[in-house]
Amino acid sequence: MSDLYSLKKAVYEANVRLFESGLAVLTWGNVSAIDREKGLVVIKPSGVDYAELKPDDMAVVYLDGTVAEGSLRPSSDTPTHLELYAAFKDIGAVVHTHSSFATAFAQAKRPIIPFGTTHADCFYGEVPLTRELRAEELAEYEKNTGKAIIEAFSGIDPSSIPAVLVASHGPFAWGKSPVNAVDNAITLEEVAKMAYRTLTLAPDAARLGQHILDKHYFRKHGANAYYGQGEHK
Amino acid sequence: MSDLYSLKKAVYEANVRLFESGLAVLTWGNVSAIDREKGLVVIKPSGVDYAELKPDDMAVVYLDGTVAEGSLRPSSDTPTHLELYAAFKDIGAVVHTHSSFATAFAQAKRPIIPFGTTHADCFYGEVPLTRELRAEELAEYEKNTGKAIIEAFSGIDPSSIPAVLVASHGPFAWGKSPVNAVDNAITLEEVAKMAYRTLTLAPDAARLGQHILDKHYFRKHGANAYYGQGEHK
Amino acid sequence: MSDLYSLKKAVYEANVRLFESGLAVLTWGNVSAIDREKGLVVIKPSGVDYAELKPDDMAVVYLDGTVAEGSLRPSSDTPTHLELYAAFKDIGAVVHTHSSFATAFAQAKRPIIPFGTTHADCFYGEVPLTRELRAEELAEYEKNTGKAIIEAFSGIDPSSIPAVLVASHGPFAWGKSPVNAVDNAITLEEVAKMAYRTLTLAPDAARLGQHILDKHYFRKHGANAYYGQGEHK
Amino acid sequence: MSDLYSLKKAVYEANVRLFESGLAVLTWGNVSAIDREKGLVVIKPSGVDYAELKPDDMAVVYLDGTVAEGSLRPSSDTPTHLELYAAFKDIGAVVHTHSSFATAFAQAKRPIIPFGTTHADCFYGEVPLTRELRAEELAEYEKNTGKAIIEAFSGIDPSSIPAVLVASHGPFAWGKSPVNAVDNAITLEEVAKMAYRTLTLAPDAARLGQHILDKHYFRKHGANAYYGQGEHK
Repeated sequence: MSDLYSLKKAVYEANVRLFESGLAVLTWGNVSAIDREKGLVVIKPSGVDYAELKPDDMAVVYLDGTVAEGSLRPSSDTPTHLELYAAFKDIGAVVHTHSSFATAFAQAKRPIIPFGTTHADCFYGEVPLTRELRAEELAEYEKNTGKAIIEAFSGIDPSSIPAVLVASHGPFAWGKSPVNAVDNAITLEEVAKMAYRTLTLAPDAARLGQHILDKHYFRKHGANAYYGQGEHK
Repeated sequence: MSDLYSLKKAVYEANVRLFESGLAVLTWGNVSAIDREKGLVVIKPSGVDYAELKPDDMAVVYLDGTVAEGSLRPSSDTPTHLELYAAFKDIGAVVHTHSSFATAFAQAKRPIIPFGTTHADCFYGEVPLTRELRAEELAEYEKNTGKAIIEAFSGIDPSSIPAVLVASHGPFAWGKSPVNAVDNAITLEEVAKMAYRTLTLAPDAARLGQHILDKHYFRKHGANAYYGQGEHK
Repeated sequence: MSDLYSLKKAVYEANVRLFESGLAVLTWGNVSAIDREKGLVVIKPSGVDYAELKPDDMAVVYLDGTVAEGSLRPSSDTPTHLELYAAFKDIGAVVHTHSSFATAFAQAKRPIIPFGTTHADCFYGEVPLTRELRAEELAEYEKNTGKAIIEAFSGIDPSSIPAVLVASHGPFAWGKSPVNAVDNAITLEEVAKMAYRTLTLAPDAARLGQHILDKHYFRKHGANAYYGQGEHK
Repeated sequence: MSDLYSLKKAVYEANVRLFESGLAVLTWGNVSAIDREKGLVVIKPSGVDYAELKPDDMAVVYLDGTVAEGSLRPSSDTPTHLELYAAFKDIGAVVHTHSSFATAFAQAKRPIIPFGTTHADCFYGEVPLTRELRAEELAEYEKNTGKAIIEAFSGIDPSSIPAVLVASHGPFAWGKSPVNAVDNAITLEEVAKMAYRTLTLAPDAARLGQHILDKHYFRKHGANAYYGQGEHK
């Protein structure tokens, strides 16, 4: 119970940070986290103002989506989060936003290809774009959104590219913890902003060379990382 | 009288929120609300700084535009608001701004077509653009601006698309309450910003598929809505 | 003397507002005002941080540019301000900034043509662009910048278009008082931002119709104005 | 020791200012300064949140890169800073950021050519772009990044153009002191923003005339400068 409260508090704080960082306006956006031992997911309640949110308002659901605890309805995007937790075994938290630059790429139906080291420091390759859902998939819209994301990661390690653009919709990001997942959502928006400015300045801008992509990604990630103080996320 | 003070306070707070959200600079922009039982409209006074505004400064007018109460002149845009209240029977509040991205579309004479779910969550179709007023309509400029908006909504339910772009001028938005109308004005500006970035990135970006538009709009609106906590706006 | 202190305080506050509004970064930008009876101009000192500025730091100069009072060197742009006061008899204050969107038009060597009513509410026609100075004019660079501005207003009433773009440099704005001149500088930047977004969205966007330009300008200015509370600026 | 603490405090404050000015997000960006008498460089530790930074956290290294003092690992970009101190004898501080507009030029592989006086006031000519590093240079990536910067300044006085764009990466700026170097990094980002807006508005915008570039640069720099209060940075 104490552990669960800690997780609720972490999810609450990550949601508030989403709002304060400008990634979410009004009631848009949500963060969840999973306690894999207990098989519980904690997520922002649906359509509640960030200013009124409290840690105890966080909804708690089982992995099949049934409500485990709490009086508020969980985010309508919950089935998407649950699909991601089921398929991506190493992630501990998921973030969904409509952050403006990343959403513009999603609306333009363009993945974000790497143009520089800011991208490579966090994403080891292009941030993929999902396919559009078909009409017959809409009955289970949020669940199938999750399935389309997983399909877009066929052959890609989701830990190496911790974000995706859902076509015509917006980004999802993930990470080991709520803090790390929000860091990745912030980085995605910054990278999308830089890519937008790069492309409007130079429509034929070249993809980052693979040797630089490798160098920067592995400077921060994996066994030979030497960025930071040793506690690598 | 107590009811009227509540409405003045709500209109005052909505005007201040307009300024604090960055949608209005200097003295630009105004919010009004209607008490349909009493037949009174409460609106921001003309050309007063937001920093100096008080709830009691709100002007109160009858539906024919004559002043019912208050010593300050009502917004010069009042006749536009009154036309909207007369024609759109279900709305309770109106907002006018010169918010930058929405105004850029109004100046470019382009309606905002739906490119993504952020748009579909609030606007069930493209946000229309009015025609320009003719020289002979300028004697009753503000009233005829209202008539041009109503003309642009011929065959469209104004509750399903709670905003419009007045050509060469800027947006009007509306809603059930001052809070809801400002939410819609904020959403319009975010949607315009995303559409601008989408179009500058991909000039031939495709309109959102109708099945996704339907899905997202009706996820939040109408009898089968399942977003939020049940008190649908 | 007391009057002069009031003017120093007003100029100080206008300079601070310039910084707080985001129109000026670091030590860029300056505001001045004139006491036409005393023949004195009060102006920001050169290169002083806004955070360290005090009312008594304002420099006071005669109309020929010699220092009347104060221990700090006046802004290096002082001779430009003095030319404007000498030629434009009705203005009481001058503002210079490098605000980003207006400066982009100055660098692109494009005047800002009116695309909408936000422009028409403040500027009765296009905001002119000066010619570039010739090499032989650089010995008295700041003075000749003022002369180039005046040349650009040949046949134009500077009260009806209270701003200009100095080619390759940035905007100057003016008004009856420091507050009014800063209002005009803020409006210019908003109008430039909207025009930039209009043109990048629709490179062939049409100039605002003259009948709407007239209507909006005279709604706020002149004998038949009906915007605001009667004390027209 | 007291001197070293002063330098640590100045470097700490410059790092915090970098974050507060919006030039750095998350843990990106770093500022260093050199004590040339002692042969010591003080620099931000690697990957530490700005909110948690304290003056005593600053890392201190010798010019060969070995750690002289402090328990935190220095920034992974330290070898780049050290190369710059070794080659550019007059500089006292170095700043690295991923500020968005400057990085967009670095990603588009375009130097920033001077379009206006804002540029000329700080940079006496175009801000150069380095060449990309070759695969065989990646073993000493950060050191060779420094060498590529120095190569880009062949024939250019680094005091006259105190910034560079590292291709596909982002900007470095420098100056006499931490305050001055951050001023230059802020100016670079403002100049990049204006250049971006100029080029998207007018892709064929002309380079600033050399006579104006000379006039503005030498108005602020060198023996005949007359901007500011006499203590030229």
